[in-house]
Amino acid sequence: MSSEHIEQQLQQRVTEAEQVISAYLPPVDGMQRTVLEAMEYSVLAGGKRLRPVLLLESYRLSGGEGTLAEPFAAAIEMIHTYSLVHDDLPAMDNDRYRRGKLTTHAKYGEAMGILAGDGLLTYAFETAAKAFDQVKDPTDGTRVARAMQVLANKAGVYGMLGGQVIDVESEGQPGMTLEKILQIHTLKTAALIEASLMIGAILAGADDTRITQMEQVARAVGIAFQIQDDILDITSTQEVLGKPIGSDARNEKTTYVTLRGMDASVREVKRLSGEAADILRQMPGDTVFLETLVQMLTVRNH
Amino acid sequence: MSSEHIEQQLQQRVTEAEQVISAYLPPVDGMQRTVLEAMEYSVLAGGKRLRPVLLLESYRLSGGEGTLAEPFAAAIEMIHTYSLVHDDLPAMDNDRYRRGKLTTHAKYGEAMGILAGDGLLTYAFETAAKAFDQVKDPTDGTRVARAMQVLANKAGVYGMLGGQVIDVESEGQPGMTLEKILQIHTLKTAALIEASLMIGAILAGADDTRITQMEQVARAVGIAFQIQDDILDITSTQEVLGKPIGSDARNEKTTYVTLRGMDASVREVKRLSGEAADILRQMPGDTVFLETLVQMLTVRNH
Repeated sequence: MSSEHIEQQLQQRVTEAEQVISAYLPPVDGMQRTVLEAMEYSVLAGGKRLRPVLLLESYRLSGGEGTLAEPFAAAIEMIHTYSLVHDDLPAMDNDRYRRGKLTTHAKYGEAMGILAGDGLLTYAFETAAKAFDQVKDPTDGTRVARAMQVLANKAGVYGMLGGQVIDVESEGQPGMTLEKILQIHTLKTAALIEASLMIGAILAGADDTRITQMEQVARAVGIAFQIQDDILDITSTQEVLGKPIGSDARNEKTTYVTLRGMDASVREVKRLSGEAADILRQMPGDTVFLETLVQMLTVRNH
Repeated sequence: MSSEHIEQQLQQRVTEAEQVISAYLPPVDGMQRTVLEAMEYSVLAGGKRLRPVLLLESYRLSGGEGTLAEPFAAAIEMIHTYSLVHDDLPAMDNDRYRRGKLTTHAKYGEAMGILAGDGLLTYAFETAAKAFDQVKDPTDGTRVARAMQVLANKAGVYGMLGGQVIDVESEGQPGMTLEKILQIHTLKTAALIEASLMIGAILAGADDTRITQMEQVARAVGIAFQIQDDILDITSTQEVLGKPIGSDARNEKTTYVTLRGMDASVREVKRLSGEAADILRQMPGDTVFLETLVQMLTVRNH
């Protein structure tokens, strides 16, 4: 497939994801309209919509039809957004800008930043639970139930939030190990990607083998994505990357690259990316889009 | 029933609720143990366990048997606790003590306070979703699904969190109206009590009439509870109340009492409490415990 064609297909999928997300965002009105506005602002502030695109593609790939996966696609983007909103808070990373726009707390105040994040997290589960309204038979119901469990598990203390905790606690502390770095990447980044690919497969009725394979693909992609982030922080330029480089060195941050060296890091990204592609190629169905997406997310230059 | 007997029964139910909560709290270990410890600290810091007691009693009253309601009982206390943890944050009420103990952020730092609240909220849904593992037939599955929807709805922007938003925004602003005060009480306080009584009935398989009645009982109790709070802030003493009185006057806070006067407020608490008791008395089954609980929560002196 030509790279131009893939780019076009990706843009189409992002647009599809954005339509789904918008359809499930609560209307901005009522006495609590400020928090609804802050929630909408946070979600619509941009982003690659990677997780909903992966979730919907995984659903299709496993033979899913209709709109059962859409509430979950919207929900996973709300959870991703809530994590950014809370990470940006003064007590956390204290960031006033993200993607060139004011962060939620910078625009709406700190209290509303906390509440908008809480609101998005809660509304994500309210949204996902709407999938139950589409359930036509007990089999569907069981799938939605399992998808809810995976969503909560991968977002919480044993997933994304757990990774954020380890990351926050490690900051400025000596003794960062490779094991800990990989654990942070696995939880903070990979867990929600795992949820995306797993939930798509679960809702489509895939068997356990396929669901586990999707988890493996997502884990490899998530970890490779983060190591590549550390690589680009050294090898790229601000023009290409769209953000200042060298921040890890300035913050004396221990990364996969500082511990293993550049060559080993580049090799590891390629290995993980290849591992993910291999698993995908063994699956039935047209996995080309997903394989290309894996390549774009891992062996990338920005 | 003698008041001594009721006290004994209440204590027994609180103990039951605490056992359920403890059983569902995640173990404190692993690399993310700090947040798990902060979550446990927050939940076990005390409290009346009102919501899980109401949820389990409503389940029993509608003929529910077995342990299907237990994950939800634990979940609703986790959600209540997360709301307290985030309300206490410096950007919100900035409270360093609650029930004589350090608040979560005061003990673990602000970042961990935010993360422990997020962790509890997410884990609440993970816990509630465990009820699906107990589902034996499609009917059970449908009930658990509906209970999940109610839980998320009553906790979020259209429930408790929405009330907190209106409350935060009204602070120090002129023009507080009776409508707004009642809206804050309905959402911030009543919504989670509504969820408790409704979810118990839903899981037990009660019909829609009963579920709506439970919602009405809970709303009356929630609003009466808050008006009584405002009354006691004027009429009680620090010794009886266990916290300083007169805080509303000091903060020049507009309350139901300042708008309607003391006599009308006392009458409204009695009216709401009577309304709740009337609905309960019309229900089949032994509603004495629930009726007494309603009395204790509304027409109370501390």
